[in-house]
Amino acid sequence: MAQQDRAIRTRNKIVLAAAELFDEVGYEAATISGVLKKCGVTKGALYFHFASKEELAQEVLAGQVAALPPVPPQELFLQQSLDEALLFAHLLRVGDPMVRGSVRLTVEQGIPHDGLDRGVPMQAWIDHNLEVLTRAKAAGELLAHVDIVSTATLFTGSFTGMQVLSRILTGHADMVERVSDLMRSLMSAIAVPGVLVRLDFAPDRAERVYEAALRQREELAATATV
Amino acid sequence: MAQQDRAIRTRNKIVLAAAELFDEVGYEAATISGVLKKCGVTKGALYFHFASKEELAQEVLAGQVAALPPVPPQELFLQQSLDEALLFAHLLRVGDPMVRGSVRLTVEQGIPHDGLDRGVPMQAWIDHNLEVLTRAKAAGELLAHVDIVSTATLFTGSFTGMQVLSRILTGHADMVERVSDLMRSLMSAIAVPGVLVRLDFAPDRAERVYEAALRQREELAATATV
Repeated sequence: MAQQDRAIRTRNKIVLAAAELFDEVGYEAATISGVLKKCGVTKGALYFHFASKEELAQEVLAGQVAALPPVPPQELFLQQSLDEALLFAHLLRVGDPMVRGSVRLTVEQGIPHDGLDRGVPMQAWIDHNLEVLTRAKAAGELLAHVDIVSTATLFTGSFTGMQVLSRILTGHADMVERVSDLMRSLMSAIAVPGVLVRLDFAPDRAERVYEAALRQREELAATATV
Repeated sequence: MAQQDRAIRTRNKIVLAAAELFDEVGYEAATISGVLKKCGVTKGALYFHFASKEELAQEVLAGQVAALPPVPPQELFLQQSLDEALLFAHLLRVGDPMVRGSVRLTVEQGIPHDGLDRGVPMQAWIDHNLEVLTRAKAAGELLAHVDIVSTATLFTGSFTGMQVLSRILTGHADMVERVSDLMRSLMSAIAVPGVLVRLDFAPDRAERVYEAALRQREELAATATV
């Protein structure tokens, strides 16, 4: 059991170091030896877990949605969706390596046939948003005409773009404000007025959601250990 | 005069070939000799116009907004803005090399200090959108609360993201539909009802705008020669 724990810790250390390196230099310029230097793991240990740089990158891509701790439940499903966007923006702003590394891997075009499937996190976000929007629809939070598949895609794509813009123009410093503006615009087009008026778009909510999500995760972990 | 014309043609040929190469392999992997191979220009001619790969890339970035032919004037300024978005989407979908090359250069993060200023096209789009929105506001097309600076930024960022998403998931095939959805959502949040109801979001408008823009450009060129 202790040995298995150690293996999981080593594996996580490798993935985190890889994400950091992908964030710094991109996929093509990153090397296995660069990852080894960052995490202080032996070559043998790394290859025990991952056969190639491509496998490592695919693991980082696959972990993008899970890199966000679940936000505390809200009365309105649209507030949950908004909180997730604010939390993601906050993590990008403060430089969370898993989030930044996986986002860079997603957005970069790469060379043809580099083997990376950048559709994985995009599709995971669309699926996740679709799930929350389906609940919002069932709860009567959405205007009658709203197409939830197109809206889930719109949430995912437009968030991605605000990330690119904020990175280029301010190094992610205004990320939370940009996403707050975006969500205000998107929600105006889909929420019924009685819901819209109750949504909290305040940029400082991002940090509060983050703290609450961390607390919730710790409490869950404590319960699991008991 | 003929000599000057020839120099301009050569310069344009070089920039177009560079944009094509940047689209195919990205900034880091692109080389001057790759550009030479594509355009069949001599090394001396290229270095007469551009001192380095960086200068070439900066030229491609700077040309992003100008790569779109001006759309024919519309009664509503918001329709002009919508037409520009549809036209840009159409050019990305059909694979216009200047547009695709400059967009890839913009979106890619590159290595730290590679010297490329990716803010140039972003800021140019924000400025351009701000100009059109200022006119829309003066003409009474916008709801009273609309912050035009934040909206101009939102248009630019969210468009960028729909481009990334459409490229990853469909190789730009659904680009026009994604942008049509995006614009419908954005316009719902800013346009007064009487304007909103008159906007044409039809995806097939993209191709019509493109044809009309080309015709207009040819007519202007013909007038200029007379």
